Amino acid sequence: MKKASIVSIGNELLNGQTVDTNTTYLSGQLLTIGVPVVSSYTIGDDMDAIVRAFNLASNDANIVIATGGLGPTDDDLTRQGFANFLGTELELQNELLDKIQNFFAKRNLQMSERNKIQAYIPAGARPLANPLGTAPGIMAEAEDKLIVALPGVPSEMKQMFAESVLPELQRFAGTQAVVVRKLRCFGTGESNIAELLGSLMQRGRNPLINCTVEYGVITLHIIATAEDKNKARQMAEKKEKSLRNTLGELVYGTGEQTLAEVVGEKLARQKMTIAVAESCTGGTLAKLLTDIPGASRYFTHGWVTYSNTAKTTELGVPADLIEKYGAVSEQVAQAMACGARKKARTDFAIGITGIAGPAGATEQKPIGLVYITVDSDDGCNTKHCLFPHDRQFIRLRAAQTALNMLRLELNI
Amino acid sequence: MKKASIVSIGNELLNGQTVDTNTTYLSGQLLTIGVPVVSSYTIGDDMDAIVRAFNLASNDANIVIATGGLGPTDDDLTRQGFANFLGTELELQNELLDKIQNFFAKRNLQMSERNKIQAYIPAGARPLANPLGTAPGIMAEAEDKLIVALPGVPSEMKQMFAESVLPELQRFAGTQAVVVRKLRCFGTGESNIAELLGSLMQRGRNPLINCTVEYGVITLHIIATAEDKNKARQMAEKKEKSLRNTLGELVYGTGEQTLAEVVGEKLARQKMTIAVAESCTGGTLAKLLTDIPGASRYFTHGWVTYSNTAKTTELGVPADLIEKYGAVSEQVAQAMACGARKKARTDFAIGITGIAGPAGATEQKPIGLVYITVDSDDGCNTKHCLFPHDRQFIRLRAAQTALNMLRLELNI
Repeated sequence: MKKASIVSIGNELLNGQTVDTNTTYLSGQLLTIGVPVVSSYTIGDDMDAIVRAFNLASNDANIVIATGGLGPTDDDLTRQGFANFLGTELELQNELLDKIQNFFAKRNLQMSERNKIQAYIPAGARPLANPLGTAPGIMAEAEDKLIVALPGVPSEMKQMFAESVLPELQRFAGTQAVVVRKLRCFGTGESNIAELLGSLMQRGRNPLINCTVEYGVITLHIIATAEDKNKARQMAEKKEKSLRNTLGELVYGTGEQTLAEVVGEKLARQKMTIAVAESCTGGTLAKLLTDIPGASRYFTHGWVTYSNTAKTTELGVPADLIEKYGAVSEQVAQAMACGARKKARTDFAIGITGIAGPAGATEQKPIGLVYITVDSDDGCNTKHCLFPHDRQFIRLRAAQTALNMLRLELNI
Repeated sequence: MKKASIVSIGNELLNGQTVDTNTTYLSGQLLTIGVPVVSSYTIGDDMDAIVRAFNLASNDANIVIATGGLGPTDDDLTRQGFANFLGTELELQNELLDKIQNFFAKRNLQMSERNKIQAYIPAGARPLANPLGTAPGIMAEAEDKLIVALPGVPSEMKQMFAESVLPELQRFAGTQAVVVRKLRCFGTGESNIAELLGSLMQRGRNPLINCTVEYGVITLHIIATAEDKNKARQMAEKKEKSLRNTLGELVYGTGEQTLAEVVGEKLARQKMTIAVAESCTGGTLAKLLTDIPGASRYFTHGWVTYSNTAKTTELGVPADLIEKYGAVSEQVAQAMACGARKKARTDFAIGITGIAGPAGATEQKPIGLVYITVDSDDGCNTKHCLFPHDRQFIRLRAAQTALNMLRLELNI
């Protein structure tokens, strides 16, 4: 079986400036074609260190992917390091030089003499096109190993990996076809999902289920491997169906969909509208809704009624209601939602009030207590939650929980 | 000079699930005591790979910091790998066992038999206290090398590194005293800052100036090294003064301060209030302001008037003004700010309207065009900007630029 090792090159990765996200991306991608990453080396812009890392990585694995150090400046040493590792010299590729010159000409920019170095690659290697920049990638096969160098800029690296490297890797690794589908879930914890899925998540299964969590959204990766793409797709689809049966309304979407996206799509499709009235979330819910391009089709009004006065004057929440039950109460969440829907004349309105902390808690009302109301023609639906962790977590989880309540009302 | 190498242990780092932020944190911290990180190794939960990485790292450097693999489950192999690397056995430390038992008892939890393994460390090594969890760290000195293993959970790792490891490292590295001060800037690009600072940013300088950028906020790290702390502090302070002179009002704060934080502090101190009226930013500005604990002292009202109707009914923006100049115009930004201030009766109000894209652009009004008004007793101050990149970037930069305008009005 083929294995891979990753080499990340750049001083910025070792002085606290830059978090290396390339390794995570590449190892996730390699997993989808059934190639496990067994090691990863990070070094600075230093020739000896680069050659040593190439050697270590190619001892660990048959596939080596290096990123970074392909720029035009003096501290970009990956080209030369690659050549030294192969035991060859750098050679000028006239075709590459033309491409780089064209890149600048098209943009009416003067090409610096320095950029010429980017047209050199190790003898025997071949260049990989970079549609987004001037640094070409480099690929070489040597002694049953496939060695690839890509730019470190994540956007350039990702596009080149997907377009030029992945197909080559599939050929080289001779792996079976792999299909990955993602199911996005909200409304329970990771451990509960793990319990519901039981042995499905065990290593070695096919399809294999991987689980990742980010701010309450649980993503299940269904990874199906088979002789051909069609068979793998069928396996993944079958598994997806059975997972949907098991998880029921916990599943809200697929792929990279967010809660705001699925809710927004359905509202737009049904030509329905929404307004929001926020206190403790302070605009977070409006922001999540308007993160989606085209949100103006359904989102019309948002209020951040942070003070009690604002709740009363803008949304008509009776001052004596606030006095009687407190600003953080079921009654006020409902009055905020109803007031917003009435003023905005929307199909739905959401009201949120709670205690995000760190101050403001009382014995009856601890930090993390949040009341959320969804108001519609069907009346008010109110939920109270107690979120753990800190201010940021509480605010984001409250806004997402509100979107999830709306999703369930929309029967998504 | 002492150098460091980092070893990151865990399957999740090599299967696309987890981005390794520990290496960035540790290398940044080590830089502050004058210890450069020369390499970093990432491997899965595999005994041979762990021992090999410890060997490689200790060949590269005198200081090795490993993270991860100290949990109680079968795939946590760092303890044993550490012992194998040292050529010793694991030993039960009764004191550690008491601590772990207390950790569970205090929380009224049953301690699993598995957690006992966390009380074992390599013979000759010493444990490092973990105030946040059950996994103690491990530190050993061998052949002029200092080897440290810490848990992989970032919050636990960071606290243990700061409290238990950093002081030891300073002793071990025998470095001179290092003082780091951070200056936070907003209002220009990185290249312009670099030009203003000139040779100050060159490697080898003392104090050294490092520069990082995140969404328009530029942080200058002033790193001063001297025989003692006092001298280093004086050098850093002197350099800070001269940087402030050079950069003038581009500097808005120090340390980890955000724009919303410095603006909020000044508003609270002056007992002044603010309201915001947002269109294209869709709640982002309100969210940034209310990210700060205690924002209710000065932030009272926010409107997200996404539809034209909302602008008219909620903020009193004349419908014919919108018709004449368009919703994205100087006139409408002003009317939004003035309307918000009038309704909320605040000292300041901000109005934002623009085109965040990807749709909605016209020939006269491209994607990224944003009008921002700050209204106060001094009248309306309006700015128009053309932000590059995508929807998220445009929205965040617009909200930050609004905060920056307010900061300048507040003479911060």
